[in-house]
Amino acid sequence: MVTNKVWTLRKRPVGDVSDGDLELEEAPVPAVGEGEVRIRTLFLSLDPTNRIWMSDRDQYMPPVEVGDPMRGGGISIVEESRFDGLQPGDIVNTGLGTWSLYHVKKGSEVTKLPALPGVPLTAFMGPLGMTGMTAYFGLMDIGKPKPGETLVVSAAAGAVGSMVGQIGKIQGCRVVGIAGSDDKCRWLTQTAGFDAAINYKKEDVGAALDRHCPDGIDINFENVGGEIMDTILTRLNDFARMPLCGLISSYNATEPVPGPYNFSMLLMRHVTLKGFIVTDYMERFAEGMQAMAGWLLEGKIKFETDIVDGLENAPASLERLFSGKNLGKLVVKVSDPD
Amino acid sequence: MVTNKVWTLRKRPVGDVSDGDLELEEAPVPAVGEGEVRIRTLFLSLDPTNRIWMSDRDQYMPPVEVGDPMRGGGISIVEESRFDGLQPGDIVNTGLGTWSLYHVKKGSEVTKLPALPGVPLTAFMGPLGMTGMTAYFGLMDIGKPKPGETLVVSAAAGAVGSMVGQIGKIQGCRVVGIAGSDDKCRWLTQTAGFDAAINYKKEDVGAALDRHCPDGIDINFENVGGEIMDTILTRLNDFARMPLCGLISSYNATEPVPGPYNFSMLLMRHVTLKGFIVTDYMERFAEGMQAMAGWLLEGKIKFETDIVDGLENAPASLERLFSGKNLGKLVVKVSDPD
Repeated sequence: MVTNKVWTLRKRPVGDVSDGDLELEEAPVPAVGEGEVRIRTLFLSLDPTNRIWMSDRDQYMPPVEVGDPMRGGGISIVEESRFDGLQPGDIVNTGLGTWSLYHVKKGSEVTKLPALPGVPLTAFMGPLGMTGMTAYFGLMDIGKPKPGETLVVSAAAGAVGSMVGQIGKIQGCRVVGIAGSDDKCRWLTQTAGFDAAINYKKEDVGAALDRHCPDGIDINFENVGGEIMDTILTRLNDFARMPLCGLISSYNATEPVPGPYNFSMLLMRHVTLKGFIVTDYMERFAEGMQAMAGWLLEGKIKFETDIVDGLENAPASLERLFSGKNLGKLVVKVSDPD
Repeated sequence: MVTNKVWTLRKRPVGDVSDGDLELEEAPVPAVGEGEVRIRTLFLSLDPTNRIWMSDRDQYMPPVEVGDPMRGGGISIVEESRFDGLQPGDIVNTGLGTWSLYHVKKGSEVTKLPALPGVPLTAFMGPLGMTGMTAYFGLMDIGKPKPGETLVVSAAAGAVGSMVGQIGKIQGCRVVGIAGSDDKCRWLTQTAGFDAAINYKKEDVGAALDRHCPDGIDINFENVGGEIMDTILTRLNDFARMPLCGLISSYNATEPVPGPYNFSMLLMRHVTLKGFIVTDYMERFAEGMQAMAGWLLEGKIKFETDIVDGLENAPASLERLFSGKNLGKLVVKVSDPD
C-alpha cells in the first residue's frame, strides 16, 4: 500500500497565504485501474493562479473547495501503468492535478514529454510548459508584435514575462521589462537580451518608461495591474495591444481594488485589450511548442528555474511570487526520478 | 460683408459647462477663394465628445485651445461656391467644423448628402451620420454579434445606443438597454424593439440584468463607464466582446476616476475590449451607410432627434447629454434651409 501526501485547503487565505490555510495530510493511494497510471510528482509548478484558486472570488474556473486537495500541475514519473501508451519510468506532464506526491489518473490525461537532448526537465514547466505557451500565444496572437515596435512587459523576470520579452526580441521589438530588483534587471538586460529594465521598487516607473520608450508603447503585456499598469496606460500609442495575462498585484487583496484610473486611455488610444487563459490556445499548443523548442535549441531563449525543495514547503513558497523574490519559473522539487 | 457668429472657448469648464466657459462672438466671414465654398449651418450636432474637447485631459485628438472656436460638426447648406462639385442650395455634411453659423472651407472638405426620398435631413446626423456609423462599426466589427447572443447597451436611448440595440436586433440578438427614464425605456421596448430596458435611476441594475439576461451577457457596448459598467462586468460570459465607445460618466469629473473595480473580470472571462473612434472606420463608411440606409428605408431602424432651437443655446444644451434628458440625437437648429 502506497501512502500519499496531499496538501488540503483548510480555509480560504485572507491576504497572504498563512500557516493553517492548508494542511499536509497522508492518504492511501488508490489501486491502479484498467487504463490508469500511478505517477509520482517530480516537480510541482507554483503559479499566481494557485492563489486565485484558493479564493472564492469570481474566476475563470471553479475555486478549490475548502476541504479539497489544492489544485496544481507539474511533472511526474510513471511508477505503475495499466495504460498502453505509458510504462514505468516515463516522464509526463501531470496535467491538472493536486499538490500531492502521487496521482492515479487515466493514462489519457497525462502527456509523455518528448526527449530533447540538452534540454533539462524544468524547461517543460518554463519555455516548453504552460508559462511558455502563455507567453507565446498572448504575445503572438494578441500582442501581434511588429519589428520596430515597443513592447513593455511587467513581472518581466517571472516565468511568463521573461519569455514574453525574449519572444518580443526575436520578433524585432524594442523590449522594456519591469521587475522588482537590480539583480532581476541585470538578468533581463545582460542574459535575456532586453533593451532596458526598470526596477519599480527603486525607480520612478513613469520617468523610466519615458526614457526607455521614446516612441511610446505599442504592446503592453500585462501581468500585474495596479499603479504600474496605470502608468503604462498613459504612454500607449494609438492602436496599442494589451494582452491581459494576469493581475497579480490584486490576488492577495482583502478589499475591492479599483481598476486603472487611466482606463479611459483604452478608449482614447484605440487600444485592443484581451483577457486570456493559456488553455484558450490548447488546440495550437503544437505550434507553440515547436516555435519555443526551436528557439531554445538555437540558444535564443534563456530561462531560469527557482527550485524550492520539498512538497512540505509548497504553501510557504507561493509567497515568493507575490513579494517579487523569484527569478524565472518557481517550482517545488517533490521527489527524484530514481 | 457677411457676419459670422462663433462660439469661442473662453476657459476650460470645471465639471458641467457653465456660463462664461464659452462666448458667442461676431466675426467677419472671409471671402470665398478659388476651390472654396461658404456654407451656412442648418443643424449643429451636440455630442459627448464636445465635452472631451473642451478639457485638457489626454484624449484622442488635440483639445480645443482656450481662445479658439469650439469644435463641432453638423449639416450645412451651400450659399456660395467656387468649387466645381457644389452649387448654392446643396446640402452638405459640415465635416469637422466649429460651433458657428458660417464656414468657409475647401469644397473637397465637405460632402454633399445623397437625396433619399422620405428620409429627413436629421437622419444624416443620426443613423446615417457619425453616431450611426459609430454604432454600426462598433457593434459589427468589435461586438461581432451572433444570433441568440445577449447584447447589453448603456445610454441606450442616446444617438449611438439606440442604433446599437436596433442593429443588434437585426442581427438576431437578445437586446437589453439601460437608460435613465421610464419614457426612454418605453421608447426602447415599444418603438425600437429592444427585448428589455432598465431604468438605472429607479431599478437595481444588477438584479434587472440578472432577470433580463438569463444566459449572461455576450456583448457589452460600453458608452458610460462607472458603476453600471462594473455591474455589467461581473455578468459577462466567457469570450464576451466589449466595444468601448464612450465613458460619459467621467467626462465632467473634476477628480481622478477609478477604473472598474471588476476590471479583473476582463481576464477571468477572456473578454476582448476594444476602444475605438468612428473615424477608425472611415474607409468603410460606404458599407455602413449602405447597410443603415437600407434598414432605415425598410423601416427596421427608428430614430428620434432632440432639437434645440438657436445657436445661442448650444453650450447650455450640451448638459442634456450628461443629465440624461435627451432621447435620440441631440442637435441644435441653427438656421432654415431657405
